[in-house]
Amino acid sequence: MMMRAPAIPMIAFEKESGVTLGTLHGIGLGPGDPELLTVKAVRLIQAAPVLAYFAKKGSPSTARTIADSWIIPGTQEMPLYYPVTTEISFKSQAYIDQLRTFYKEVAKELAIELSAGRDVALICEGDPMFYGSFMHIFERLKDCFRICVTAGVTGMSGCCASAGQPIAWGDDVLTILPGTLCLFDLTSRLATTDAAVIMKLGANFPKVREALAATGLVDRALYIEHGTTGAERILRLSEKTDDAAPYFSLILVPGRGRMP
Amino acid sequence: MMMRAPAIPMIAFEKESGVTLGTLHGIGLGPGDPELLTVKAVRLIQAAPVLAYFAKKGSPSTARTIADSWIIPGTQEMPLYYPVTTEISFKSQAYIDQLRTFYKEVAKELAIELSAGRDVALICEGDPMFYGSFMHIFERLKDCFRICVTAGVTGMSGCCASAGQPIAWGDDVLTILPGTLCLFDLTSRLATTDAAVIMKLGANFPKVREALAATGLVDRALYIEHGTTGAERILRLSEKTDDAAPYFSLILVPGRGRMP
Repeated sequence: MMMRAPAIPMIAFEKESGVTLGTLHGIGLGPGDPELLTVKAVRLIQAAPVLAYFAKKGSPSTARTIADSWIIPGTQEMPLYYPVTTEISFKSQAYIDQLRTFYKEVAKELAIELSAGRDVALICEGDPMFYGSFMHIFERLKDCFRICVTAGVTGMSGCCASAGQPIAWGDDVLTILPGTLCLFDLTSRLATTDAAVIMKLGANFPKVREALAATGLVDRALYIEHGTTGAERILRLSEKTDDAAPYFSLILVPGRGRMP
Repeated sequence: MMMRAPAIPMIAFEKESGVTLGTLHGIGLGPGDPELLTVKAVRLIQAAPVLAYFAKKGSPSTARTIADSWIIPGTQEMPLYYPVTTEISFKSQAYIDQLRTFYKEVAKELAIELSAGRDVALICEGDPMFYGSFMHIFERLKDCFRICVTAGVTGMSGCCASAGQPIAWGDDVLTILPGTLCLFDLTSRLATTDAAVIMKLGANFPKVREALAATGLVDRALYIEHGTTGAERILRLSEKTDDAAPYFSLILVPGRGRMP
């Protein structure tokens, strides 16, 4: 659905300049399996003249890899390289400053394309509005350009399907916890929820395991990495002996709700 | 991905009987827009000889309506009519008994098709493993048949996209709350989370609004009904004057996380 708020300045600009601005599409790609793109995502990716995606320098873009089989050869591509990802703490001022500058520059780059009347498809792993980098661009451009967001399947849903694991039943409270939280917060949240999904593991894995052990949840927890892709690995947490975990791996603590 | 556990009795049966059992597909349809089906969902719906869906007696099935444009004419259809939905309290023994009998009968009906070697596509609104009726069937059949679950876009994600509303940022804690919870639980959960999604509104709407008022969140909350469909309606909660809400409408309380 088209956004409502930005219509005024945009329309005024188009009227004055005679230029029709491009639309920014924020497109969710789902958890990793290329067949878990929505029909709408495929259509929009194939229609947009410019394809943008975030990437870590020196690594292939995860988003670009998921979408690969759907991209029409010859599409103009705009990789957006993070200046930093997990090398320094996300709480440090240096991290915040570098990211702020980066998002500002990306917004400017996208604005140039949009102002020239070209639509841009910014493709995003999972769902764009659920802990996504896209949201930082959305907030910066929403008052000046048409932005159309296409929801995607979250990593959480993809992992529940792969693991054959219902996550929440009936009136279960489900808590989504970033693994970046401190041990105290993780433990107190886990102690008071019916079901949980813990995201952003990576270097946070040992701390997350400690919180699950402290709350007696290790035996109920499942660990999943690369969910829905060829590299998928699903383990009971109690069977995982090492502490290595990709940043986008996750842990499911299924609810046990009421089951008639 | 295929489930692992059930392989043993199934394979023994197939070997003894010479019959190849059918596969049960639990297929997420997304929030309502037919274009938000995944490519995989469309492929599986069109491949399965039998199409099953839950429905309320006397109303068109929501799942059937979402999938309609993708169904190949002549497909054998198996509507599964709930004996009761919101007419009696989900906490009453009568509700629990009627639902239990219903799910048992549905499992039996599906088992007959699967035992005859026919694949069945059981289509579900949203995501099958996220508060879905499908989970009740999954639990009853997973040890006897191959079950393949295809994740879908949740109503939550669809509504965030439609509303142009990022839901959770960085290390925001996001709490998913069924509106069926009591006022005390709703209030205490809302008071201690960064972001929330409140589902299953319907007759629970006035109670949910009271909990949001008690926690000072009315001004931050958005109300959305029929998200991503032609009948979509998005309002600030503070602008909603009546108490009428469909059961599948929801309320978003966006997080404000850290934003570099």
